[in-house]
Amino acid sequence: MADEGFRTIWLNPDDPSIVQIIDQRKLPHEYCIQDLTSWQDGLVAIDDMFVRGAPLIGATAAWSLYLAALHGNPAGAAVRVAAAKLLASRPTAVNLGWAVERILRIVDSTTDADLAQQIRADAQAICDEDVQICRAIGQHGLTLLEAISKRKGGGTINVLTHCNAGALATINWGTATAPIYLAQQQGLDVHVWVDETRPRNQGSQLTAWELARNGVPHTLIVDNAGGHLMQHGQVDIVITGTDRTTRAGDVANKIGTYLKALAAFDNGVPFYVALPSTTIDWATRDGVRDIPIEERDSTEVSHLTGIANDALTTVRTVMRTTPISNYAFDVTPARLVSGLITERGICEASEAGLASLFPEEANT
Amino acid sequence: MADEGFRTIWLNPDDPSIVQIIDQRKLPHEYCIQDLTSWQDGLVAIDDMFVRGAPLIGATAAWSLYLAALHGNPAGAAVRVAAAKLLASRPTAVNLGWAVERILRIVDSTTDADLAQQIRADAQAICDEDVQICRAIGQHGLTLLEAISKRKGGGTINVLTHCNAGALATINWGTATAPIYLAQQQGLDVHVWVDETRPRNQGSQLTAWELARNGVPHTLIVDNAGGHLMQHGQVDIVITGTDRTTRAGDVANKIGTYLKALAAFDNGVPFYVALPSTTIDWATRDGVRDIPIEERDSTEVSHLTGIANDALTTVRTVMRTTPISNYAFDVTPARLVSGLITERGICEASEAGLASLFPEEANT
Repeated sequence: MADEGFRTIWLNPDDPSIVQIIDQRKLPHEYCIQDLTSWQDGLVAIDDMFVRGAPLIGATAAWSLYLAALHGNPAGAAVRVAAAKLLASRPTAVNLGWAVERILRIVDSTTDADLAQQIRADAQAICDEDVQICRAIGQHGLTLLEAISKRKGGGTINVLTHCNAGALATINWGTATAPIYLAQQQGLDVHVWVDETRPRNQGSQLTAWELARNGVPHTLIVDNAGGHLMQHGQVDIVITGTDRTTRAGDVANKIGTYLKALAAFDNGVPFYVALPSTTIDWATRDGVRDIPIEERDSTEVSHLTGIANDALTTVRTVMRTTPISNYAFDVTPARLVSGLITERGICEASEAGLASLFPEEANT
Repeated sequence: MADEGFRTIWLNPDDPSIVQIIDQRKLPHEYCIQDLTSWQDGLVAIDDMFVRGAPLIGATAAWSLYLAALHGNPAGAAVRVAAAKLLASRPTAVNLGWAVERILRIVDSTTDADLAQQIRADAQAICDEDVQICRAIGQHGLTLLEAISKRKGGGTINVLTHCNAGALATINWGTATAPIYLAQQQGLDVHVWVDETRPRNQGSQLTAWELARNGVPHTLIVDNAGGHLMQHGQVDIVITGTDRTTRAGDVANKIGTYLKALAAFDNGVPFYVALPSTTIDWATRDGVRDIPIEERDSTEVSHLTGIANDALTTVRTVMRTTPISNYAFDVTPARLVSGLITERGICEASEAGLASLFPEEANT
C-alpha cells in the first residue's frame, strides 16, 4: 500500500530468534506487536486469529516452522511435528498447506544443522514473493478500475468488498485492496463500501482501519446492505479475496461472499475475486461439494469486543442459552464470478480460464 | 403464541390513562414494562424503537392518538397534531399510516367529548383484529409446513427467518412466526434458523428470546450464513415478514431480506412472506423504485449493547472516525417471492395474486 515499508510479519531485526506480528484481534482500537518465540506461539496466533487471511496464515506457518527448527533437537523431527499441528489448525485456507509443504521439501534435503537458516531464508522469500504477487494483482486489477473511471468520465469508482483481503491479510498491499491502493496512487477517485463482516468484523475493524491509514475514502455498511446498494446503482464493482479457489473457479471465501455474488449477478455488477495462485486448489473442482468449511466457536457470534469507558470491553449480546452455529466460509460458484484477478493477469473463473494463465499447474 | 395472554401493548388495567409496552431495546437481557402517558411518549417509543415491527408500530400509533385525545384540549385538534408527527416518524412501514388514517376518520365524525373513548375502543379493536389476523396467517402458513413435514416423513422442518416478524413485532403470534407456533402446537418437528439481523440484532435479541420462551428449537446464525445453509440443503423454507408490500408483490422488509431471497431462489428453497393486508400499499407497484427506504443513525452500526460484568454495557466496535451508512430496509422483487401468506390465504406475489384475495382493494 502507500506505505511501502508496511509488513504484517517480520523477523525482529535485533533478535532473529523472535518473529513479530500485529495482534489483529485488537485492531482498530490498539496497535500491538506480538512476539512469537516458538512454533507453538505461531500455532496460537493462527488458531486464535492474531493473524488471519490466507496468505498471511501461510507466511505465519512458514515462520513458525523456522522457530521449530531453531529450537528443535533434532531440528528436522521438530519441524515435522510442528507441521502436522499447523496443517490441522485452519482447514479452509489452502495456502497454509502450500506453505507447510514448501518448507517440508527443505527438510527433506537439508541437514539438521543448516535447517533453521534454510527455512528462515525460505520464509523470508515467501513473504517477499507475496508482496510482489499482491503488487502484480494490483496492477492487473487496476485496469478494471481505470475502465470504470473512464466510463464514468472520471467519476467516483464505488468498490464493494467483504471481509479483509487487504494488506493485513497478506504481507502488504492485500489482494482485493491492491487495485484500490494503486488506483488511489494514480489519482483515480475511488471509494470503498466496507462490509462489516460478521461475526468477526474484519471489515469494520481491519479493512476500515487500513483504508483510513492510507487515506482511501470508504463507508462502513452492515453485511445486509450490499444488495440494496447494488439495486440502486451505488456499486460499480465487487472485489473480494479468497481462501481457496478450485481449478474450476469456485471460490471459498468469508461467509456471506456468496450472497454478495448473487446480488452482483442479479444487478449486473461485475464480481471479481483477487487471488495469489497459491490459493488455487488444483486437486478440487466442485467447491460447494468438496471444500471443507470450518466451523468456529459460538462465542464469535455471541460476544463482541469494543471500547466502553476508554477500555477494551467484551459484551455478550445474546442470551446465554441461545444455540449458535458459526460457519466461517462459504463457496461462490464460478458461474457467479465475473473473473479472477491473479498475479499473471485476469481470467475467466473456469478451468479453461485458469489453465490459460497457469498451464503448468492445470496440465498436471 | 403458546401463551395466549401475551400482548406487546395494552392499557394498564388499573389506570386507563396509561398505555403499557415492553421496552424491546432491553431484550433479551431485561424484561421491562414501559408506561406511555402522553402521545409524545408513544412517538419516542416508535422513534427510538422501544417498539418495532410494522403491526406493532401501527398499534402504538393508535394508542398514542388515544392519549392525545385524552389530554388534548380541544381533543380533535390535539389528535391531528399528534397524527402528523407520528406519520413522519418511520417512513417505510405502511401500516403506521394505515392506523393513523383509521383513527383520523373517527376524529372527523366524533365530538371532542367522546373522542378519547372512541379512539380507545378503536385502538383496542386494532389490537384484537391483529391477533385474529396473525392467527389466520398462521393457519394458512401451517399448510406449507405440514406439506414439508409430510414430504420429509415427519423429519425436521427447517425454517429460516430474518429480523423479528414475531409476536414482538405484532400484538401476539407474529406474522412469520405464527405458522411456526401453530406447527409446534400440532406436534410437528420444527426448527428455526434465526438470522442475527444487523445492525439492531432483532433476530438474536428478539426472535431468539420469543422462540426460547415458547420452547421452539432454534439456532442463531449471522446474516452471512443463510446462503451456505441453503446450498447444503439445511433450509426447507424461508419465511419473513414485511413492512410494506406493493400491489405487484414487491416486498420491503428489514435490510438483508433481498439477499436471502436471492439465495433461496438460487437453491430452489421456497421463500414466503407473511403479512397482514394492512401492510399492502395498493398505491405502489414498483417497490425498488418507489418505496422510501429509511436511513437510521450510524451509532446503530458502530455501537452495540450487551452484558459485561452482569451489567448492560454499550461498546463502540469501530474507530470513531469511520464513516457509516445505515439503510434500514431493502426491497425484494416479487419475482423472487414464492408466495404471500395473508389472513385470507396464500397467493402468488403478483398483482393478480393479491387481487384474487383482495378484490375490493385491487379494483379501486
